[in-house]
Amino acid sequence: MSDETPSAKLWAGRFTEPTDALVERFTESVSFDHRLAKHDIRGSIAHATMLAEVGVLSPGDRDAIIRGLEGILADIEAGGFEWRTSLEDVHMNVESVLTDRIGDAGKRLHTARSRNDQVATGVRLLVREALDDIVGSVRALQDVILSIAEREAETVLPGCTHLQPAQPITFGHHVLAWFEMLERDAERFIECRARVNRMPLGAAALAGTPYPIDRSITARLLEFEGLCENSMDAVSDRDFAIEFVSDCALVMMHLSRMSEELVLWVSAPFAFVELGDAYCTGSSIMPQKKNPDVPELVRGKSARVIGHLSALLVLMKGQPLAYNRDNQEDKEPLFDTIDTVTDCLRVFAGMLRTLECRRDRMHEAARLGYMTATDLADYLVRRAVPFRDAHEAVGRAVRGAVETGRDLSEMTLEELRSFSPVIEADVFEVLTLEGSVAARDHPGGTAPGRVRAAVARARERFDSG
Amino acid sequence: MSDETPSAKLWAGRFTEPTDALVERFTESVSFDHRLAKHDIRGSIAHATMLAEVGVLSPGDRDAIIRGLEGILADIEAGGFEWRTSLEDVHMNVESVLTDRIGDAGKRLHTARSRNDQVATGVRLLVREALDDIVGSVRALQDVILSIAEREAETVLPGCTHLQPAQPITFGHHVLAWFEMLERDAERFIECRARVNRMPLGAAALAGTPYPIDRSITARLLEFEGLCENSMDAVSDRDFAIEFVSDCALVMMHLSRMSEELVLWVSAPFAFVELGDAYCTGSSIMPQKKNPDVPELVRGKSARVIGHLSALLVLMKGQPLAYNRDNQEDKEPLFDTIDTVTDCLRVFAGMLRTLECRRDRMHEAARLGYMTATDLADYLVRRAVPFRDAHEAVGRAVRGAVETGRDLSEMTLEELRSFSPVIEADVFEVLTLEGSVAARDHPGGTAPGRVRAAVARARERFDSG
Amino acid sequence: MSDETPSAKLWAGRFTEPTDALVERFTESVSFDHRLAKHDIRGSIAHATMLAEVGVLSPGDRDAIIRGLEGILADIEAGGFEWRTSLEDVHMNVESVLTDRIGDAGKRLHTARSRNDQVATGVRLLVREALDDIVGSVRALQDVILSIAEREAETVLPGCTHLQPAQPITFGHHVLAWFEMLERDAERFIECRARVNRMPLGAAALAGTPYPIDRSITARLLEFEGLCENSMDAVSDRDFAIEFVSDCALVMMHLSRMSEELVLWVSAPFAFVELGDAYCTGSSIMPQKKNPDVPELVRGKSARVIGHLSALLVLMKGQPLAYNRDNQEDKEPLFDTIDTVTDCLRVFAGMLRTLECRRDRMHEAARLGYMTATDLADYLVRRAVPFRDAHEAVGRAVRGAVETGRDLSEMTLEELRSFSPVIEADVFEVLTLEGSVAARDHPGGTAPGRVRAAVARARERFDSG
Amino acid sequence: MSDETPSAKLWAGRFTEPTDALVERFTESVSFDHRLAKHDIRGSIAHATMLAEVGVLSPGDRDAIIRGLEGILADIEAGGFEWRTSLEDVHMNVESVLTDRIGDAGKRLHTARSRNDQVATGVRLLVREALDDIVGSVRALQDVILSIAEREAETVLPGCTHLQPAQPITFGHHVLAWFEMLERDAERFIECRARVNRMPLGAAALAGTPYPIDRSITARLLEFEGLCENSMDAVSDRDFAIEFVSDCALVMMHLSRMSEELVLWVSAPFAFVELGDAYCTGSSIMPQKKNPDVPELVRGKSARVIGHLSALLVLMKGQPLAYNRDNQEDKEPLFDTIDTVTDCLRVFAGMLRTLECRRDRMHEAARLGYMTATDLADYLVRRAVPFRDAHEAVGRAVRGAVETGRDLSEMTLEELRSFSPVIEADVFEVLTLEGSVAARDHPGGTAPGRVRAAVARARERFDSG
Repeated sequence: MSDETPSAKLWAGRFTEPTDALVERFTESVSFDHRLAKHDIRGSIAHATMLAEVGVLSPGDRDAIIRGLEGILADIEAGGFEWRTSLEDVHMNVESVLTDRIGDAGKRLHTARSRNDQVATGVRLLVREALDDIVGSVRALQDVILSIAEREAETVLPGCTHLQPAQPITFGHHVLAWFEMLERDAERFIECRARVNRMPLGAAALAGTPYPIDRSITARLLEFEGLCENSMDAVSDRDFAIEFVSDCALVMMHLSRMSEELVLWVSAPFAFVELGDAYCTGSSIMPQKKNPDVPELVRGKSARVIGHLSALLVLMKGQPLAYNRDNQEDKEPLFDTIDTVTDCLRVFAGMLRTLECRRDRMHEAARLGYMTATDLADYLVRRAVPFRDAHEAVGRAVRGAVETGRDLSEMTLEELRSFSPVIEADVFEVLTLEGSVAARDHPGGTAPGRVRAAVARARERFDSG
Repeated sequence: MSDETPSAKLWAGRFTEPTDALVERFTESVSFDHRLAKHDIRGSIAHATMLAEVGVLSPGDRDAIIRGLEGILADIEAGGFEWRTSLEDVHMNVESVLTDRIGDAGKRLHTARSRNDQVATGVRLLVREALDDIVGSVRALQDVILSIAEREAETVLPGCTHLQPAQPITFGHHVLAWFEMLERDAERFIECRARVNRMPLGAAALAGTPYPIDRSITARLLEFEGLCENSMDAVSDRDFAIEFVSDCALVMMHLSRMSEELVLWVSAPFAFVELGDAYCTGSSIMPQKKNPDVPELVRGKSARVIGHLSALLVLMKGQPLAYNRDNQEDKEPLFDTIDTVTDCLRVFAGMLRTLECRRDRMHEAARLGYMTATDLADYLVRRAVPFRDAHEAVGRAVRGAVETGRDLSEMTLEELRSFSPVIEADVFEVLTLEGSVAARDHPGGTAPGRVRAAVARARERFDSG
Repeated sequence: MSDETPSAKLWAGRFTEPTDALVERFTESVSFDHRLAKHDIRGSIAHATMLAEVGVLSPGDRDAIIRGLEGILADIEAGGFEWRTSLEDVHMNVESVLTDRIGDAGKRLHTARSRNDQVATGVRLLVREALDDIVGSVRALQDVILSIAEREAETVLPGCTHLQPAQPITFGHHVLAWFEMLERDAERFIECRARVNRMPLGAAALAGTPYPIDRSITARLLEFEGLCENSMDAVSDRDFAIEFVSDCALVMMHLSRMSEELVLWVSAPFAFVELGDAYCTGSSIMPQKKNPDVPELVRGKSARVIGHLSALLVLMKGQPLAYNRDNQEDKEPLFDTIDTVTDCLRVFAGMLRTLECRRDRMHEAARLGYMTATDLADYLVRRAVPFRDAHEAVGRAVRGAVETGRDLSEMTLEELRSFSPVIEADVFEVLTLEGSVAARDHPGGTAPGRVRAAVARARERFDSG
Repeated sequence: MSDETPSAKLWAGRFTEPTDALVERFTESVSFDHRLAKHDIRGSIAHATMLAEVGVLSPGDRDAIIRGLEGILADIEAGGFEWRTSLEDVHMNVESVLTDRIGDAGKRLHTARSRNDQVATGVRLLVREALDDIVGSVRALQDVILSIAEREAETVLPGCTHLQPAQPITFGHHVLAWFEMLERDAERFIECRARVNRMPLGAAALAGTPYPIDRSITARLLEFEGLCENSMDAVSDRDFAIEFVSDCALVMMHLSRMSEELVLWVSAPFAFVELGDAYCTGSSIMPQKKNPDVPELVRGKSARVIGHLSALLVLMKGQPLAYNRDNQEDKEPLFDTIDTVTDCLRVFAGMLRTLECRRDRMHEAARLGYMTATDLADYLVRRAVPFRDAHEAVGRAVRGAVETGRDLSEMTLEELRSFSPVIEADVFEVLTLEGSVAARDHPGGTAPGRVRAAVARARERFDSG
């Protein structure tokens, strides 16, 4: 970024004083919006093409503009373009150099448009690209999860509510819950895309333009699915960005929940899983540590995206139509959200590929905790005890077991019958973990067969989708 | 709410101490979740019907349960049901009274389910109903806006950016921007509905149930479009509520922006519109005041919903699966959001029905402000001056006009020609407000004909939708 | 709340239409601001007293007003006051009944003030009272923590970073960290109090009043420490509420962190502590569960207060001076924050009184995890090995221990010496948990003596404070 | 930032796999925490000095360390230091180069500390510096405001509530409300400073250290006012950062409110003030525009800081003690807050220096709007009409005036008497703007003399402070 002396602005005609240097730094956006360059140039090429098609621009000017812009893009991508903060933003930087290079034709590019519809177009193109990329990363992460689910379809661990052992479940079943969260995320992004993918170009400053433009040509060239149907709305709408960031906040909330679980599972008292060394770091003072830094950072980064979502809503909340300079503040939270979500999804997929279950630890933990108590209650119900009475009898049985330090399956038949006379010898079958898990055999249940079927169904949908 | 002495809990078997009174008050939820009663009972009836159909419940028990629940619902709706905080929540209150009334059959209702899937079902039914209601209110508000747009299709006022007059627009065009915002809101709610409308019932506590349930029967009875496909996810997912509240935050942000504009427009220096007395209030000390309380309150209430959205994301962010008691905190922000959005939409529609334009004030304001400067620049461009050069020439012309305190249209041809020699006598046509507005005659532009066409298109879509 | 037909408003002189019923419900605040009644009446009595003292009110009128207001307050406290939503807010309700009861004198009470300074005064009095109450609850909770710290000054458990065992610490030391958090909370509240405790009365609507008021009299009567020094600011400032809620958000964040730890510690794999049955609940389906509902709810409720803080900042963010109706929205988040924080602090103190350490479990967990590795590194440093080299040698030693499944203290001297030749037989002293803990014997360190000294210091400060 | 191949980590002893490149980029913090370099080095120098003083480090090693660190700092400040992301953070970068340069002595620097207390120390030193700088900027802005207040002590404009003209005020009085807001901001920062200015060093990883350290020496060298009194708390506490950001959010909320007012006041219908050209920008398409970009951006940037405050609270909310990697996420919101607030305060002061009042416009606006209605009511009260009756009579008078399109002062005495017979000829004195303003002559009132006295008092306090 070149931080030169304040200089003549393209809009300086009206003004008599130079812009103060602090103000220039304070108001410039090119230090972050240069990221829009590719999208801005693509939009300008489409605009020039349309202007020529409707006769507002000569074919010669159009060709000069397109060649000039292509050259600038090449320079930018090669790292050889000098951005000037004195030219405020990406748009003015590009146009200024274009005019330096091709002369008067460059000054004709801004005909029938304004920075207001220009920037809205660039941001939408960028979000559309980011969104497609993120959906790809969600799918890649889901794919890793399906592999784990398949591999661990029979691995039993304690299913918790309130972080207390509740009922035995399979690990495959557990991670399929993660799959479902991400499935909703993908759905939301795809639906959001249709609202992102509408074209503001043609709205000009806020009222449209007197030139005989044909918005459908530009929309086609830029692959927009529809037009923003009101020019005032076109330049002031940031819904698409907020909805996108809201969808991102939900993904991050999901990744944060998964991270919380991973942090617990690698902790010494749990020790249910191991993560690859590449996804952990050590301590500067405690040599024995293997810290789950990646899930901790992902959990932390969810806070950042929640903050960005708030910021964007707050930003827009009190603004009258149409464009206000406040809107310039939409870009940094948006860009940071894109980067954060993209990185988190990718690093998570890589990390989960290294996840190994310590099946013995999981099974041992599941064996404790009286987790088949519900199965005992259900056993009683099948013997015609009303559910609430069964529940109470089992409560007393568990209390008895806790007092003597044994699991339910370690009590004698006689002891068990003291809580309910309908109990018979076959009760011990329902008190095993495997029996408990296998019995939950309906759509959505934790039975290994159901886990495998869910994986198969998901893979099929992926292959056909 | 009856605040009696702490008493025996349904789950008290395991415990030896009574629940402390403060704890009882702290943990109870019936004071707010009794609002779920109708949905909870509807869910229970469907559950009992299914259980009977698959043979887990006898027809006699089913009938007793249904009759009992219908009686309880009637009592609740008649205001004759005594809620007990000692029974914690709506579910326990209903079940406890049911058992008092019908005996053992009541104790069988909770077979093959848990409060975890029960509450998730009730909340989804409530949100689905609220969402449909809100979409109706959005449509009603859009309808009022269309009427205004049609009536004011030719009313010219200053279109602003940065709250500075930019270009003349029509009032009809301005409010159609509001229409578009609400159109996106409706779209989002409708898409969210599909994710709300999935059934968690059958997930039981978290792992499914060993009973031979048939989830498709319950789903059909409750008009759910699909099943939550993983039991762990079913009981811990609150995405549907967060997405719904996020959609609500966007509506509120829109209403807040409209409110900001109304507050400006009724202020003395603008005085562009009048709102009905019924939507304003006076001052306790300044008798001349007519305050736009309703838009101010709506603007203020947007803050509340943004806060609720944050709260819900923060609530879920660090939770391991499956259900944790933190989740109880989802209800109050959700319910308050529903009430806030519903009221704001309704009161806004009523208020806009009373809106009257002070067309003379708008026109007078539009006449000042050099708002046809862009038209002059476009005039020059049509005479082959490159846009950027035209822009600069007009800048100088405006500066000249400002210095002599006149509008551009009040300068002589000679003066105007001193800024650009291509200017001729026909320039004065483009310097009128009506000419400026009429010239923006493309899809999305502010020309009166375009405004009327947009209204017609919208009405057609409404009629056919 | 009496929900009668819309009726004549005190400010209705200017208006020709009745207020719509929905609008009345939408704009009323008495359903929540009746909570200000006591403070409002106290403020009015002080105002009347001052008015009489400066000669604006006759002694007779003053006495009638005071007697009237005292009667109304008695009725409110006895539950026999009928609030009318048609009278909008607590202020109008009280004044209206006052005038009904005492006639013209009642109509003179509002001389030299406005609802704007009246409501600001009432809210400040309420917050001042709540703040003092909350500081009391913080102190009570700190007191419980000191007792635990003293009792468990020698109880060793694993100190964690990244939820991985890092170094042995004492439980007393751990909970003293909680004490410090709360100490900062108390400090902040006390400093905030001085900003809460300034009097807005006298600002009237926004500009002051032409009556010869003496603000120092009213301030003295209401025990305010200072005056709001600018009338515009006096009626529009809500900093005191936001700062207070921000302080509350920090307390809640602290309680949430403590809760997270308690939820972990009562989980089966940790099982470090037990909480009293009164602070836990059971499951409707799993009879063996003992769920830490109270800490989970507290953790959840932190989200709500964070949301309220956002809401208040957002509310104020774009408002021009002076009072706007948006401000009415400050009360519900403020009141809910007060109730939430108050309840959470109280229930937490009660719960911690029941906390019992399972010292055997803690010690066993501390014995695993190679937690004296740093001590070994420090041992090497004392034998002149540079810290970074020592660190690396210990890293290799731990890796060797992990591979053979033993603790460092279980290796032979020979094995240990293979990692560093400076190791001698006295190394085993530093590899004990007790030795490790006792060695951290400086201000702020975990040594039992330091814990006891910290408790003593805190108690002394409490006693003298 | 050098983005080299993943390489050996200082803590790599325990690990067998290289760190994945994405993970390295994902987890590194040096790209933003290099900003701590100066503070980190200052902390290290103090630490080494203390270690030598207590005999843990030889004088020779100490001197080598100090000279080495000073050299590194010089290189950093000269821009000649190569930061390596493979070394993760600022701390490891500095230490690694130190050891390269001075050998074994460098490896001894980390004795008796950990990155956990090291980073906490650096961040506190940075915040302390930023805070002092911000208080200076607040004072500078207040100083500009005092000058305006003095200059415009008699400039009358409409004082608004609900953005409706309420009562005449002076412009000097209005901006003194801004002064008061900033006064509270300064108070809060100064109180926050005491909590920032406590030293965590000595806490080491979390439990303290077995070396015979003397924390009071380090504290004195680093000018800390106190010690963090518990080692667990010392490394996990981020209250000071959150409190500081909360204070910043309040400043930004204040600046946003001022900005809202400026945006209104420079809008065409108000046209109350002019801002210097240097603080405005033009339009790319509308040459006549002069947009208040600076206040708009400031208003927008308040959203960003509110978002950061949320993010920090959310970040900490669910973390168990002591340090977790989530905490790394505290730095970017904190640093961005510092930069945002600093820039906004400075640019605001510069902008206000250019503010010019258009006194004629303000006076004209004040003349309309029936703003002396309250004065008329007060006139009646002084003639023994009860306030509420006076209020109602004036309401009718205003309605009459509105209907005939005149101000109250333009009605005849006879007309006025038709609303209340106690009115006499002297009424016209109280109906002037100047009379109204001058009458509010008590502490906090808008009378010109009170404004000047307030300015004098503030200046005196500044001079003596």
